[in-house]
Amino acid sequence: MKKLWGGRFTKSAEEWVDEFGASISFDQELVMEDIEGSIAHVTMLSKCGIISETEADEIKNGLEQLKEKASNDELTYSVKLEDIHLNLESYLTELVGPVGGKLHTARSRNDQVATDMHLYLRNQVQVIIELIGEMQQALIEQAEENIETVMPGYTHLQRAQPISFAHHLMAYFWMLERDKERFIESVKRINLSPLGAGALAGTTFPIDRHLSAELLGFEGIYENSLDAVSDRDFILEFLSDSSILMMHLSRLSEEFILWSSQEFKFIELDDSFATGSSIMPQKKNPDMAELIRGKTGRVYGNLMGLLTVLKGLPLAYNKDMQEDKEGMFDTVKTVTGSLKIFAGMIQTMTVNKQHMEKATKTDFSNATELADYLSDKGIPFREAHEIVGKLVLDCVKKGCFLGDLPLEVYKEANPLFAEDIYVVLDPVTAVKRRNSAGGTGFKQVAAAIEKAKEAMKTSK
Amino acid sequence: MKKLWGGRFTKSAEEWVDEFGASISFDQELVMEDIEGSIAHVTMLSKCGIISETEADEIKNGLEQLKEKASNDELTYSVKLEDIHLNLESYLTELVGPVGGKLHTARSRNDQVATDMHLYLRNQVQVIIELIGEMQQALIEQAEENIETVMPGYTHLQRAQPISFAHHLMAYFWMLERDKERFIESVKRINLSPLGAGALAGTTFPIDRHLSAELLGFEGIYENSLDAVSDRDFILEFLSDSSILMMHLSRLSEEFILWSSQEFKFIELDDSFATGSSIMPQKKNPDMAELIRGKTGRVYGNLMGLLTVLKGLPLAYNKDMQEDKEGMFDTVKTVTGSLKIFAGMIQTMTVNKQHMEKATKTDFSNATELADYLSDKGIPFREAHEIVGKLVLDCVKKGCFLGDLPLEVYKEANPLFAEDIYVVLDPVTAVKRRNSAGGTGFKQVAAAIEKAKEAMKTSK
Amino acid sequence: MKKLWGGRFTKSAEEWVDEFGASISFDQELVMEDIEGSIAHVTMLSKCGIISETEADEIKNGLEQLKEKASNDELTYSVKLEDIHLNLESYLTELVGPVGGKLHTARSRNDQVATDMHLYLRNQVQVIIELIGEMQQALIEQAEENIETVMPGYTHLQRAQPISFAHHLMAYFWMLERDKERFIESVKRINLSPLGAGALAGTTFPIDRHLSAELLGFEGIYENSLDAVSDRDFILEFLSDSSILMMHLSRLSEEFILWSSQEFKFIELDDSFATGSSIMPQKKNPDMAELIRGKTGRVYGNLMGLLTVLKGLPLAYNKDMQEDKEGMFDTVKTVTGSLKIFAGMIQTMTVNKQHMEKATKTDFSNATELADYLSDKGIPFREAHEIVGKLVLDCVKKGCFLGDLPLEVYKEANPLFAEDIYVVLDPVTAVKRRNSAGGTGFKQVAAAIEKAKEAMKTSK
Amino acid sequence: MKKLWGGRFTKSAEEWVDEFGASISFDQELVMEDIEGSIAHVTMLSKCGIISETEADEIKNGLEQLKEKASNDELTYSVKLEDIHLNLESYLTELVGPVGGKLHTARSRNDQVATDMHLYLRNQVQVIIELIGEMQQALIEQAEENIETVMPGYTHLQRAQPISFAHHLMAYFWMLERDKERFIESVKRINLSPLGAGALAGTTFPIDRHLSAELLGFEGIYENSLDAVSDRDFILEFLSDSSILMMHLSRLSEEFILWSSQEFKFIELDDSFATGSSIMPQKKNPDMAELIRGKTGRVYGNLMGLLTVLKGLPLAYNKDMQEDKEGMFDTVKTVTGSLKIFAGMIQTMTVNKQHMEKATKTDFSNATELADYLSDKGIPFREAHEIVGKLVLDCVKKGCFLGDLPLEVYKEANPLFAEDIYVVLDPVTAVKRRNSAGGTGFKQVAAAIEKAKEAMKTSK
Repeated sequence: MKKLWGGRFTKSAEEWVDEFGASISFDQELVMEDIEGSIAHVTMLSKCGIISETEADEIKNGLEQLKEKASNDELTYSVKLEDIHLNLESYLTELVGPVGGKLHTARSRNDQVATDMHLYLRNQVQVIIELIGEMQQALIEQAEENIETVMPGYTHLQRAQPISFAHHLMAYFWMLERDKERFIESVKRINLSPLGAGALAGTTFPIDRHLSAELLGFEGIYENSLDAVSDRDFILEFLSDSSILMMHLSRLSEEFILWSSQEFKFIELDDSFATGSSIMPQKKNPDMAELIRGKTGRVYGNLMGLLTVLKGLPLAYNKDMQEDKEGMFDTVKTVTGSLKIFAGMIQTMTVNKQHMEKATKTDFSNATELADYLSDKGIPFREAHEIVGKLVLDCVKKGCFLGDLPLEVYKEANPLFAEDIYVVLDPVTAVKRRNSAGGTGFKQVAAAIEKAKEAMKTSK
Repeated sequence: MKKLWGGRFTKSAEEWVDEFGASISFDQELVMEDIEGSIAHVTMLSKCGIISETEADEIKNGLEQLKEKASNDELTYSVKLEDIHLNLESYLTELVGPVGGKLHTARSRNDQVATDMHLYLRNQVQVIIELIGEMQQALIEQAEENIETVMPGYTHLQRAQPISFAHHLMAYFWMLERDKERFIESVKRINLSPLGAGALAGTTFPIDRHLSAELLGFEGIYENSLDAVSDRDFILEFLSDSSILMMHLSRLSEEFILWSSQEFKFIELDDSFATGSSIMPQKKNPDMAELIRGKTGRVYGNLMGLLTVLKGLPLAYNKDMQEDKEGMFDTVKTVTGSLKIFAGMIQTMTVNKQHMEKATKTDFSNATELADYLSDKGIPFREAHEIVGKLVLDCVKKGCFLGDLPLEVYKEANPLFAEDIYVVLDPVTAVKRRNSAGGTGFKQVAAAIEKAKEAMKTSK
Repeated sequence: MKKLWGGRFTKSAEEWVDEFGASISFDQELVMEDIEGSIAHVTMLSKCGIISETEADEIKNGLEQLKEKASNDELTYSVKLEDIHLNLESYLTELVGPVGGKLHTARSRNDQVATDMHLYLRNQVQVIIELIGEMQQALIEQAEENIETVMPGYTHLQRAQPISFAHHLMAYFWMLERDKERFIESVKRINLSPLGAGALAGTTFPIDRHLSAELLGFEGIYENSLDAVSDRDFILEFLSDSSILMMHLSRLSEEFILWSSQEFKFIELDDSFATGSSIMPQKKNPDMAELIRGKTGRVYGNLMGLLTVLKGLPLAYNKDMQEDKEGMFDTVKTVTGSLKIFAGMIQTMTVNKQHMEKATKTDFSNATELADYLSDKGIPFREAHEIVGKLVLDCVKKGCFLGDLPLEVYKEANPLFAEDIYVVLDPVTAVKRRNSAGGTGFKQVAAAIEKAKEAMKTSK
Repeated sequence: MKKLWGGRFTKSAEEWVDEFGASISFDQELVMEDIEGSIAHVTMLSKCGIISETEADEIKNGLEQLKEKASNDELTYSVKLEDIHLNLESYLTELVGPVGGKLHTARSRNDQVATDMHLYLRNQVQVIIELIGEMQQALIEQAEENIETVMPGYTHLQRAQPISFAHHLMAYFWMLERDKERFIESVKRINLSPLGAGALAGTTFPIDRHLSAELLGFEGIYENSLDAVSDRDFILEFLSDSSILMMHLSRLSEEFILWSSQEFKFIELDDSFATGSSIMPQKKNPDMAELIRGKTGRVYGNLMGLLTVLKGLPLAYNKDMQEDKEGMFDTVKTVTGSLKIFAGMIQTMTVNKQHMEKATKTDFSNATELADYLSDKGIPFREAHEIVGKLVLDCVKKGCFLGDLPLEVYKEANPLFAEDIYVVLDPVTAVKRRNSAGGTGFKQVAAAIEKAKEAMKTSK
């Protein structure tokens, strides 16, 4: 073919088209999985008598050499050979001669690439599950040191009621626990073998799909060959689970960013996770938290991308499906990186306990306590509210807080008030008293941490 | 406040803002769940001695009356009262007087609305699981009648190898089986009680969260009050699971649309699911399949919408989270409707068996069989390919197919060819011989249908 | 057709399918546009001699009656009649008899619905353009009162350099200006007539598409009939433009929420746009800002939804395209509501000037000024930085700020420091001196406001 | 910092964090733009007397050397130096010594990176505009050869009315024309200079932003420094425009895939754009069309990704914004590649005119013509429909088409039928007669192609 598009482009049309269509620039990430899949396949072929043992040994020998080279980064790949499968096949034939061609008996690139993807994602999800555990561990450790650290609890980013800082951190523990649960459940759908499904319809060779599945550590096989080569649910589910996880991390990122601001000053991130300024030693940009918050978009985008690719595709394999890989690789990299960095940020951050507690004392988030106090003494709730409302207004006018009002002012407002109101007004008391199951009361929080530790043991 | 925005708008600013902020136009969908949640809450309050039994009975009596009215569509709601909770509270107080106010002891709208959503989605997901089962049943029934119906199998929308029509249908069975699995697994995260988490921190009242959870049929409670009111994972997971399901339906829609075209003519949809034309009686637009394919976009959009809402939100409740409802309701409606319609379309469609089989005979998708034939007789695969390639080219020139070539032409090409090649070339033979596990061979397909029936029994 | 889906559902299959397929529940929003389109069409038909003038008058008379009824909300619609077009046709025939049928000469529902959508969106975009202008006006007014209001400027949510509050507000003016520009440019692609394109191929009748286009105020006609009925770019472009606009509003929402927090206290929103609490009079939830931030997700979702719908659709009309409407209506409602509310919030908010300025004095964001001071006096920049760095550290240890250090400390650090450094350290000075084009210097800001006013005049 | 994450990872924590935070792996794409921006900046600095001419010359000399090296791919970059800006700064200082540091006078990385992005995208959008033109040119050429090629026109993928193939192709011309229009309009928002905005607030140096803007070919400057460094609208607009363009390409891809199938056989793609099979020479997978259809997902994902990143970000620069680049680069690559490949596919494809025309004769899409025939002779339309409906049913029973019925059958149905109906039934006649503006009539199509050529001249 001549140059179709005029003289501007230095590459020929063929080169352009080849490059546009080739996947080797990214699917080389699957090199190890591809070799392992081939070793299992060839082992099965010989056990089933489809090729001889000698042939199998020669091929496996060649594959082991390739594995070695790959792990030493000694393989280079060619765009002409399109993808990782053809690149490896070419290397294999160079190494072992024509017998290499027998490796492809009873296998098509359609079931081969699907097998690679399943192996890859199974391994990566395992790593992600462990990394979630490490971040949870970091939360538990930080929480244990802050059970009695009191901070303002927020709704609408307005101070609402004082809470335990540990309680706040542990909310993220349970989010991550659900993330972990979802990833663990997904494994049973990832860890299935499509190998042997052929191009789409199965094969006429007397293969043993259960054997090759077993050799690769798969829990079972796809029951339908068309489904085996067309299914990308397992990647979509991974991207969904990852999107929800990143959403959680984006929320904690936002909080770390807020808490690190001069306005909040609740925490200080370790220098390793923040960038400073030579001239303003007090300034620390919470770069890593911002970046992770930003990377949420990338993972959402990868999910939307693959959902779009698969929408309306007829069975079985279509070239569109080559687009399943880059978003998956990118998401694995983003999620593992984000989890590791968050574990580190949590472990190393400094908690400004005094500053947090001070914040709870310079607002009216203890007003509820006062109303409860009257309510307990028999005043109907609505009336109690009204009395307290007036006292708060009184403070606002005077520029003070509830704890600053002298007892006589209280008694004037209602004779049932007594000396003990100053204890009630203490945010620490307020936190302590919210002792309903799952509440912020210190006892509850301590118990919840123990439950979390138990959960960590069983959810692995 | 004066009219802020000039004279163009007929409503006052307050009305505008109220309407913009109110959720009653859509959250009235939760009326039953809200009442049931309240009944459980008030029962618990009295069991725990927080309110008296008499008070509880009065309140429950009022709530039962509201339930009756709601189920008769006798309640009308006011935008002034913002949401379903305040609308019902107002109705309750009308019915039972000031004691109605006690219902809200130890409860906040934050845990109340979360409870409603959990109840709603638990119920709807149950319906969806059943509807998936009904569609699967329709697939099984149609497949059972088409085990030996032969059709072209496609890759890249090019005919690749002949397959059993039942095998093609059953590919969707397994997609749906994974969908069902995911929905079933999600229930354990949906069916948890946030009730008692209060505004964010729990409560000082001696409530029993396990009791109210049990009364509402929840499997457990949220372990952390902040998480309980901030978590919308269960909706995101529902939207993800629904997106994957809709993707599957969009693929089958595409195939139904293709198969209904004059070019394919593989199936004919029942009149109930197609729109005709008075003047072209043969014309049937596969409207429902198109619409379902289109509605995939809506569900993807709902997922993207909620992922965006939650990105970067600090704990605990923020008003942004009011945006969690409409997309969920819309998705429930879309998914249940689509599943019902698909079950009907599958049950009632006519399969043009002759047309399908004829298609398999007017192409070269049996060329692979011929190569295998030679291969079996000892000819190396590459050589076999070459021989067959020449025969195909021969046919193309002559304008015929492989089955049309006389035996002598075959023998000339290679003396190993014999009379039995005509059997081999028969698409039915080709399908039959692909008898590897999960392949399209008739025996495999029949066995797979039995497996599917077993799966149906256990996955409910 | 029998009940296909068992006894659980109370509706018959037909009812279900009808309801699922019908668009009348939402496309009734187009009633006025549909009638206007019909009036223009029938006028054109008679001018071209395709129907008689008498017939045209009868039909137009009927259509005017329907318009009257529609504007008085007197029309009710039936699901059986699918959509707004058939519902109106049925009403028309009731009113004027069989001649009503002639209205549909040389027109198909495909070009009819496209015409309605173009008319609708043209009108709504006009409203949106005006509302953007009103919000810009509110920004200008608030900015004019705050040119010399000094506040901390942030990067990474860390205080970086002091800026003028007006300058911060005006950043949003320019974002909105781009939004307006995009909407204005989109009009030329919205305001085109598809009328006369027929089902897909044009018509054999001697119609005059330019005439009907002119009657409807369109700027031109679609040049290709297939494109005319298949194109939904104009809606996608609207959804994209709206997504970017909502993104801008979400950023300002975030800032209003931050600034309203007890930690920042930079602004106080008017009661109309915030919800209070009876017991905590100081508490105001910035509900409207949160809700708008949340609604960003909905608009993004609508965009994603329609992009998905249209992906891979062959020409010309497919039923999938019925899904183009709800997302468009919802976006119009969301965008217009959000703009109106923001204009109101900006106009009515209270700016805590003292609090803002105080914030600029209790940090080290003036350290840069000090380095510039030395730099100006000939000290190499790196060295200047080092000197200032040490002074800052000194302050941190002592718990004071740069303005608090006595002159002798400065002189000790470097003899070039003189009395005037206290002026330099003043944040007001710092702001004033950043007088580069588009910078935060007061003169620049005042000039920029004038430029903005000019832009307002020309961009309408 | 110690290794935080246990012994599993071979890299130290610092390395991990550095890698995670660094952008050099992708922002090196901006090397040329960064150097050009610096040259303009330093030229401006010396013209304004902020640095001396000698200094400027030394720096420019160094920058020119870097440019040379960069264009020869001789620069390697270090993750330690984070991004392209610091990498180049380091190289510059090596080359020209400490004076290199002066380059950064009155500039911050925030305005620098924004400048690079604007320059990059301006250049790329120019290329895309040209490539759209080339694809349009290919459409025009193919259309010109197929004005009188008749094919079935589809709605709902059902044959509706016969049309000219050129008319179908030209529908895409106008879609692309809108795409081009949008990209052209976007340039005025891309081609603005943020340079001189500093970190966020402008600078105290007497710079001339208009001069540096002019040197870089920008049409104007950002009017607000905060906006200048925070704005990423221009990228979002690019991603939106690209998403709509890819949607168009996905539709044409779908059609090429359908038309290339054995069922349609309307076109044959050139071997360069299809992959074959050694054994089935007739088989051609339309790989490139499939891949482009698939890549639509990637571009949608990039759009969603950046929309998510920017949602709710407070001003000014936040590290999240580093996530703006990869999706932009990827989209540029995808869009340019897809356009080039499509131009080539269109130019080189073979149109099976006979096959297309034959299709129009073997269905009932000419039934409408027959009804029009009677209608023209005075039979009311409804009645005409009924007569034709019966004739069609008659054909269906007999297994023939309308053209096959003998004249007496027609006369029996209605005496007004005459010999000339066979001309009317000819699809070519049907196409010819649809001569309304923008319709499929051959004259209209020819005229539309001329209009398109005119448009090509002016829209460049």
